[in-house]
Amino acid sequence: MYDIIEKKRDKKELSKEEIIFFIRGICEKSIPDYQTSALLMSIYLNGLNERETADLTFAMSNSGDVVDLSDIKGIKVDKHSTGGVGDKTTLIVGPIVAALGVSVAKMSGRGLGHTGGTIDKLESIPGFHTSLSQEEFKRFVNEIKISIVGQTGNLAPADKILYALRDVTATVNNISLIASSIMSKKIASGADCIVLDVKTGSGAFMKSPEDSIELAKAMVKIAKSVGKKAMGVVTDMDVPLGIAIGNSLEVMEAIRTLKGEGPKDLENVSFALAGKMVELGLNVKEEQAKDLVREAVSSGRAINKFKEMIKRQGGDDSVVGDFSKFGKSKICYDLASDVNGYICEMITDELGKAAVVLGSGRETKESSIDFTAGIEILKKTGDKVKKGEVIARLYTSEKGKLLIASEIIKNSIFFSDTIPEKKPLILGFVSSDGQYGSNDSKTFFEKF
Amino acid sequence: MYDIIEKKRDKKELSKEEIIFFIRGICEKSIPDYQTSALLMSIYLNGLNERETADLTFAMSNSGDVVDLSDIKGIKVDKHSTGGVGDKTTLIVGPIVAALGVSVAKMSGRGLGHTGGTIDKLESIPGFHTSLSQEEFKRFVNEIKISIVGQTGNLAPADKILYALRDVTATVNNISLIASSIMSKKIASGADCIVLDVKTGSGAFMKSPEDSIELAKAMVKIAKSVGKKAMGVVTDMDVPLGIAIGNSLEVMEAIRTLKGEGPKDLENVSFALAGKMVELGLNVKEEQAKDLVREAVSSGRAINKFKEMIKRQGGDDSVVGDFSKFGKSKICYDLASDVNGYICEMITDELGKAAVVLGSGRETKESSIDFTAGIEILKKTGDKVKKGEVIARLYTSEKGKLLIASEIIKNSIFFSDTIPEKKPLILGFVSSDGQYGSNDSKTFFEKF
Repeated sequence: MYDIIEKKRDKKELSKEEIIFFIRGICEKSIPDYQTSALLMSIYLNGLNERETADLTFAMSNSGDVVDLSDIKGIKVDKHSTGGVGDKTTLIVGPIVAALGVSVAKMSGRGLGHTGGTIDKLESIPGFHTSLSQEEFKRFVNEIKISIVGQTGNLAPADKILYALRDVTATVNNISLIASSIMSKKIASGADCIVLDVKTGSGAFMKSPEDSIELAKAMVKIAKSVGKKAMGVVTDMDVPLGIAIGNSLEVMEAIRTLKGEGPKDLENVSFALAGKMVELGLNVKEEQAKDLVREAVSSGRAINKFKEMIKRQGGDDSVVGDFSKFGKSKICYDLASDVNGYICEMITDELGKAAVVLGSGRETKESSIDFTAGIEILKKTGDKVKKGEVIARLYTSEKGKLLIASEIIKNSIFFSDTIPEKKPLILGFVSSDGQYGSNDSKTFFEKF
Repeated sequence: MYDIIEKKRDKKELSKEEIIFFIRGICEKSIPDYQTSALLMSIYLNGLNERETADLTFAMSNSGDVVDLSDIKGIKVDKHSTGGVGDKTTLIVGPIVAALGVSVAKMSGRGLGHTGGTIDKLESIPGFHTSLSQEEFKRFVNEIKISIVGQTGNLAPADKILYALRDVTATVNNISLIASSIMSKKIASGADCIVLDVKTGSGAFMKSPEDSIELAKAMVKIAKSVGKKAMGVVTDMDVPLGIAIGNSLEVMEAIRTLKGEGPKDLENVSFALAGKMVELGLNVKEEQAKDLVREAVSSGRAINKFKEMIKRQGGDDSVVGDFSKFGKSKICYDLASDVNGYICEMITDELGKAAVVLGSGRETKESSIDFTAGIEILKKTGDKVKKGEVIARLYTSEKGKLLIASEIIKNSIFFSDTIPEKKPLILGFVSSDGQYGSNDSKTFFEKF
């Protein structure tokens, strides 16, 4: 291990054998944490090349259970988002592409910090089960093309060990380490193809477009080098996606979007992601994929697939037609603007934190979630707002939380006298061979 | 601590308060090793500036006992060598400068790896005590201007903790960390002035002259910034210093040199170091210091001072006139050259290891030392050697060690057909304000 640290300290390339030795060592606890953190810092500062990153990823994905989805017919397509505020796209793209015949065997996570989790959102549907046996999970996908369950098993334990150390040694923010962390779990999850939604902006993990593009490219290249196919979509997270933040609020918004009645930004991002999943899963060209996605929604097949999934996983599918089934939060409060002007900036992760304060997420690991709590962001960056006009609607069960959340929200929204420059929602795409193309032409938007 | 790691990771300057927090934290064990090693690696790769290095040194030197030498009259001058093979200069410079009235209250260490230790060497003198009480130690210096004892007390424990971690995380070889490690102990040892002998070459810790000069400058600057005065001498350790390697062999060589009969290289380095100690201790100019040093030796005052010190510390001072009092090793073996040619290179640390094999040092912490074991290097780099001519004389008590040691020595000496270029013995000096001047003119040599 000393020699491995020394090599990376001196900017030399680590061999595959050395990387496997390292990952095996941290799992067997034969390598002490202080050596691991010294290596992590030298990796942070001196980097890993593509080959080393791929070897690290593969070693981590093989450090625990590797899900075998071979019982499921056809190409299994997974989708991963690097996490954002109001990001309910999984609930939308899953049913759309499943309706088109793509197999979606998806394992999702719970909310973390200021970002929500798909599993928490689905559990806001009365009766919905997210804990299925592996057999049920695979059978459901074979039968109706989609199932979304909570992560089970011991996926990439080496990543958990490394992440815990990175978290306390200031070595989290390194593209190679982030890419290998995400991809080790995705690869262990067993899908054939993966669409990566890399968020960028104040609500995202990656704050700059450049870093987000680099991360997307790095992840796609890792997938390629381990024999999987991936594509990347770099999307804006400088403002929340859609209007709703909070579990049942987001499911309702997903349902609206699946019916073709959702907010335009959410529809655009969801359709872009679904398009890429269809390209990979059905092996069709970009234009055809887009047409198929639009047709799945306009025909009602997508929303019907969502109902089918809810029913199969024990949920009450009447929620789709009757939002009152979600229950209602005790308190609903309209937050009005104190000023006149254009919203020029939103600190999006702070809005996510405000929703957590209202009850939509866990402030500590032990906290329980109030599924009905959250925020509707009624005015977003670029909108003109008059003093007294409602900018956000807050939902909570605890009156005492309103003041704190309102303060956070007010402090997270900035106004100017002039219209701020519009930023693109979808910055660009990374093709399956790792090439980035920016979305400057906006053709993608025009299409939808 | 996280913020401190993050700052250094991002090449930012750490404040004095942050450095004190860090050093206090590692002593109180409130900072886990994995955070310390992450910081060490970021320091290794991103460096510390002069101010940070000085603050780190001072924090470490204050982490344990700080020796109070104020009971000793006059300016106390210490000398430190970064360690080499055959380096017995302390035994020579101590008596010389003490004879000239400079106070030498010296705490020394034992042998480590391929380098010997002054305390082990002194203990090869029958009856010599190196464990004195603080009171005896100070009294002896007041009475006869010199005492050399083993390090006691808990000097710079923070350095011990950091060094142990650096040793296993590939973060040893960084100038700032090396300089602060050495100087923290020197400062805690209580002297007013310090002459630093920074070795360079195959037998030294620093292999390149550039690094050695940097280290010397860094240490002198640290001393200055904590209100002490230091000077540096950069000396060659590409070949062993003098002829003798091994405890009593080295004491005998030191005695010869104090009588003015030692090998020229050893005399040159010793006189240069003694000259600097006299400059600092008596506040005289360079030329005058050199004259005083030569006079102390030629008059016999230096060797008499050595006898006085031996006697005061319980030793048999008749060894000075009768080397048979040191005892004799069972086996003495002449190693002959297999080839004709000029010696063009010696792997000096390997020669040190060969001496350890013969019994002069500890192979493990528990090993005992054979004071009479060692090597006399009869031919050195630049010498012409005929096949069959004796190149080294080996002393040991165990016949079985001869073959191993001979093999090591043979493999450490390289021959060529042409005379190799001469390298300077004393590369240069660092003045007390941290300026380096090279010794290109060789004037120093001509003087002696």
